[in-house]
Amino acid sequence: MPTEALQFARQNQNRFLDELKDLLRIPSISTLPEHRGDVRHAAEVLAAELNRIGMEHVEVIETGGHPLVYADWLHAKGKATCLCYGHYDVQPPDPLEEWTTPPFEPAERNGNIYARGAVDDKGQMYMHVKALESMLHAHDGKLPVNIRIILEGEEEVGGEGIAQFVREHPERLRADFALISDTEMFAPDLPTLCVGLRGMIYTEIAARGAATDLHSGMYGGAAPNPFFALCEVLSKLKDANGHILIPGIYDDVVAPSAAELKAWKSLPFDEAEFQKKEVGSSALTGEEEYSVLERLWARPTLEIHGMPGGFTGEGAKTVIPAKAAAKVSLRLVPDMEPHKVFGLYKKYVESLCPGGIKLDVRLIHSGDAIVIGVDNPYVKAATAALHEVFKKDTVFIRSGGSIPIVGDFERSLKIPSVMMGFGLPDDNLHAPNEKFCIANFHRGIESLIRFFEKLGGQK
Amino acid sequence: MPTEALQFARQNQNRFLDELKDLLRIPSISTLPEHRGDVRHAAEVLAAELNRIGMEHVEVIETGGHPLVYADWLHAKGKATCLCYGHYDVQPPDPLEEWTTPPFEPAERNGNIYARGAVDDKGQMYMHVKALESMLHAHDGKLPVNIRIILEGEEEVGGEGIAQFVREHPERLRADFALISDTEMFAPDLPTLCVGLRGMIYTEIAARGAATDLHSGMYGGAAPNPFFALCEVLSKLKDANGHILIPGIYDDVVAPSAAELKAWKSLPFDEAEFQKKEVGSSALTGEEEYSVLERLWARPTLEIHGMPGGFTGEGAKTVIPAKAAAKVSLRLVPDMEPHKVFGLYKKYVESLCPGGIKLDVRLIHSGDAIVIGVDNPYVKAATAALHEVFKKDTVFIRSGGSIPIVGDFERSLKIPSVMMGFGLPDDNLHAPNEKFCIANFHRGIESLIRFFEKLGGQK
Repeated sequence: MPTEALQFARQNQNRFLDELKDLLRIPSISTLPEHRGDVRHAAEVLAAELNRIGMEHVEVIETGGHPLVYADWLHAKGKATCLCYGHYDVQPPDPLEEWTTPPFEPAERNGNIYARGAVDDKGQMYMHVKALESMLHAHDGKLPVNIRIILEGEEEVGGEGIAQFVREHPERLRADFALISDTEMFAPDLPTLCVGLRGMIYTEIAARGAATDLHSGMYGGAAPNPFFALCEVLSKLKDANGHILIPGIYDDVVAPSAAELKAWKSLPFDEAEFQKKEVGSSALTGEEEYSVLERLWARPTLEIHGMPGGFTGEGAKTVIPAKAAAKVSLRLVPDMEPHKVFGLYKKYVESLCPGGIKLDVRLIHSGDAIVIGVDNPYVKAATAALHEVFKKDTVFIRSGGSIPIVGDFERSLKIPSVMMGFGLPDDNLHAPNEKFCIANFHRGIESLIRFFEKLGGQK
Repeated sequence: MPTEALQFARQNQNRFLDELKDLLRIPSISTLPEHRGDVRHAAEVLAAELNRIGMEHVEVIETGGHPLVYADWLHAKGKATCLCYGHYDVQPPDPLEEWTTPPFEPAERNGNIYARGAVDDKGQMYMHVKALESMLHAHDGKLPVNIRIILEGEEEVGGEGIAQFVREHPERLRADFALISDTEMFAPDLPTLCVGLRGMIYTEIAARGAATDLHSGMYGGAAPNPFFALCEVLSKLKDANGHILIPGIYDDVVAPSAAELKAWKSLPFDEAEFQKKEVGSSALTGEEEYSVLERLWARPTLEIHGMPGGFTGEGAKTVIPAKAAAKVSLRLVPDMEPHKVFGLYKKYVESLCPGGIKLDVRLIHSGDAIVIGVDNPYVKAATAALHEVFKKDTVFIRSGGSIPIVGDFERSLKIPSVMMGFGLPDDNLHAPNEKFCIANFHRGIESLIRFFEKLGGQK
C-alpha cells in the first residue's frame, strides 16, 4: 500500500511534469550577462512555488551575482534536519544548430523530456520541490523530517554567491546532512549513490603578441603569433598518453581503496560500448595504465574548451592576431587542493612563455575534490528507499564532474552530502539535446518521499 | 612646366578623393556571403566610371564568384600595351571595436584617409582610373600607350575567377607588361618598386573527436579533445626558432642573390624601431640566423590565423567539443610550388594525427612566389617617373605578402609585372584602422601619368 504522499505524487504526475516544462522554458543561462533577468525570473518562480506548497521563511537572497532561494520547515522535533540543495541556472545551449528541438522549448520524445537544464539540474532540483509538496499535502502541512532548502543560480559559473553565503552564514543552513540530486545513475534502472567527485580549476590563458592585428604576409616570419605560442604552451601541459606534465601535479593524488577499485570492476561497464555509443570517437584516450573508470573518477585531467581570437569565419583571412586565448580546466581528485594546483599550473605555464609573447593566466573558478563515507544513517535510509522504488541494490560510484558546493558544505557546515541522482549517462549534460528520462523524474520524486519518510521513522 | 594631364589631376584632387570615399563606403567584403551584393555594386560603379572617362569595351565579366571589370583603349599604334590590374574587394573589418571610426565611413585624420580598403586596394586601384581620366581628358580622349584594365573582386579570397579567366582567355588580356599598385613604399617619400612576392597556401585543419560535445567532468581523461589534438599537431609544424618542421619544406627554396642581399642591407631599416613601433611586441621571433628583411621577404613561414570551435564566450563552459579547427597558412618563396608544398604539409599533418581524432586537411587557396627582373624598359620608365615626382632614386624591394595574379600573368600571358605601390608600412592592411596617405594617393596618380607619358615617348 503506497503512502499517502506517494499516492498524491502519482495522481499529480502530469501536473508536476507540466510545471517542470514551464521552468525549463526560462533561459536561465548564468554565464551570459544578457540572461541576467531570466536567471532572476527562475529564482522568483521557485520562491513562489515553495511558498505555495507550504514551506516557511521563503526568501530570495541577494548575492553579488545571481540570487539564492531559501525556504525551510523545522517543526519535526527530534528528527534529522536535511539541507536540500539544487541549482536553477543552466549552461549555454550553443551550438544551437545541433539541437533537434529548441533548447528552451521542452519537447517529449521516447519517454524523455528534451531541454537545456532538463537533467542538469532543473529537473532533478524540481524533484525535491515536488517530493516536499507531496508530503506537505498528505500530512496536513507537516513533514516527517526537518527541511532547509537552498537553490542557487550560479552553479555553472563557479557558485561564488552560495560559497560566500555558506561561509558567512553557516547557522542559517545548520543541518545534519545535505541532499543533492545533480548526479547520474550508473545504468538505466540501477539505483546509484555518488560518493566521490572530482574538483576543478577553470582558467583562461590570454596571450598577446603584436600591438595590433598584422598582415601575415607583411609580418609573418618576424612577428610573434599568439595562437602558435598558445599551441606551444598547451602541447607541453599534457603528453600524448594523458599524463599532465605540470611539475608536482600528482604529489597529492590519493588512490582509491582496494575495496573501491574492486567494486568498480564489478559495475556493468563495457569499455567498447562506452567508446562507440557514448563518446562516439574512433578510440579513447588518456592514461592506459588506469581503467577507464579510474581515469574518469580518480585521476586528474586537463582539457582545452575553446581558443577565442583571430579569424574564425568561413573562408580565409591572413591575419596574425594581436591576441588569442585558451580556456583550460583541470579536474582534480583527492587530496589535490585547487589553489595549490593553480599555483603550480600558473608557474609552469609562465615558464613556457615563448619570446615576444605576454601571457596572463587567470583563475575563473575552482572547486574541491570530495570523497564521502557510506557508513551513516542517511546513506542507509537512501539505499532502503531506492530499493523500494527500483527493486535493486544501490551501487556506489564516483563522478568525474565537480559539485563545488559539496566541499563548501563539508568545510563550513561540517556535514556530509548524500548525492542521490537520477540522470542517465547519455543525458547530454552541457551538450546539445540535453534530456531527462520522464520515468526517472517520477521515480526520483517517489524515492525522495520514501527517503524522508524512512528518516522520519515511517515504515 | 607640368604636362596637361598633370595639371588636370592637380585641379581635380578634391573630386578624385571624394570619389574614392564613395567607393570606400561600399562594404565589398568578398569572403562574406552576405556582402555579395556589395561586391557586385562596387564592380558596377567602377564599370560606369571607366565608361564615363572614355575607356572602351567596358564590361562586367561574370565568373563563378564575384565579377571582373574590364575596359581597354588600344589606339596608340606602335606603342607598348599595359595591362592595369587592381582589386575592388576588401578584407573583413573585424574586430570592429578596435576601429577609431567605422570601417566603411571614410574619415580624414592627419593627412590620411581611414577606411577598410583605403590602401588595399581600392585607393591604389583608383589611382589607375584617375591617371587614365587625366590623360584622356588632357589629350582629347587619347592615351599615350595602349591600355587594358582588369579589376577583380576576389583577391582577398584567392582570386579563382580571374585566374581562370587569365588561363582561358589570354588573348583578351594580351599586353607587354602588367602594372599593379597593391604594394607599399619602403619608407615615407622613398619611391619603391616591388620585385619579389611570397606565395602562399591557406589551409584549414578540421579535427573531430567524440560524436557530440561532452561534459569535461564526465568524460575528461578518456574522451579525445580536438583542441588538444590540434595544439599537439600545430606545435610540431614549426619550432621555437621559426624553423618549419615539415619534411622537405626547404628543398626548393632559392636564396636571394648576393647583390640583392647587399642592397637590402643599405635600406633604411631599423630593426629595433620595426619591433617597437610597427609590430609593438616585446621581441621579434623567427629564424635568427637570417636578417629580419630576409625572414619577411625570402624565407617561408607558417602562421595560425584562428581556431574556431568550442566555447569562446565570456566565463566558463566545461565542454569537450566534438570538433575544432585551425586556419593555417604558409608563405612561400621561389621556387616553392604551392601544390607540392600542400602535399608535403597535408602528409605531415596527417602523420601527426593523435589517437581518437580524425583530421581533415583542406586547401582553401594558393599562390606562387615571384621574383621579377629589373632590366626592362618598363622598370626604367617607372624609376624615371618616380624620380620626377619624389626627387629620389627608386629602391627595389620584395614583399612578404602574396599577389597571386602576378604568377598567373607570368604563366599564362608570359609578361612581367611592374609593382609600383604607394602604401606605407604602417597602413594597417587587413587590420583595424586601415589607412592611405592622401598625399601618396595624389603623388601616385601623378607618377602613373608620367610613367605612361614617358612610355609613350613624351618627355
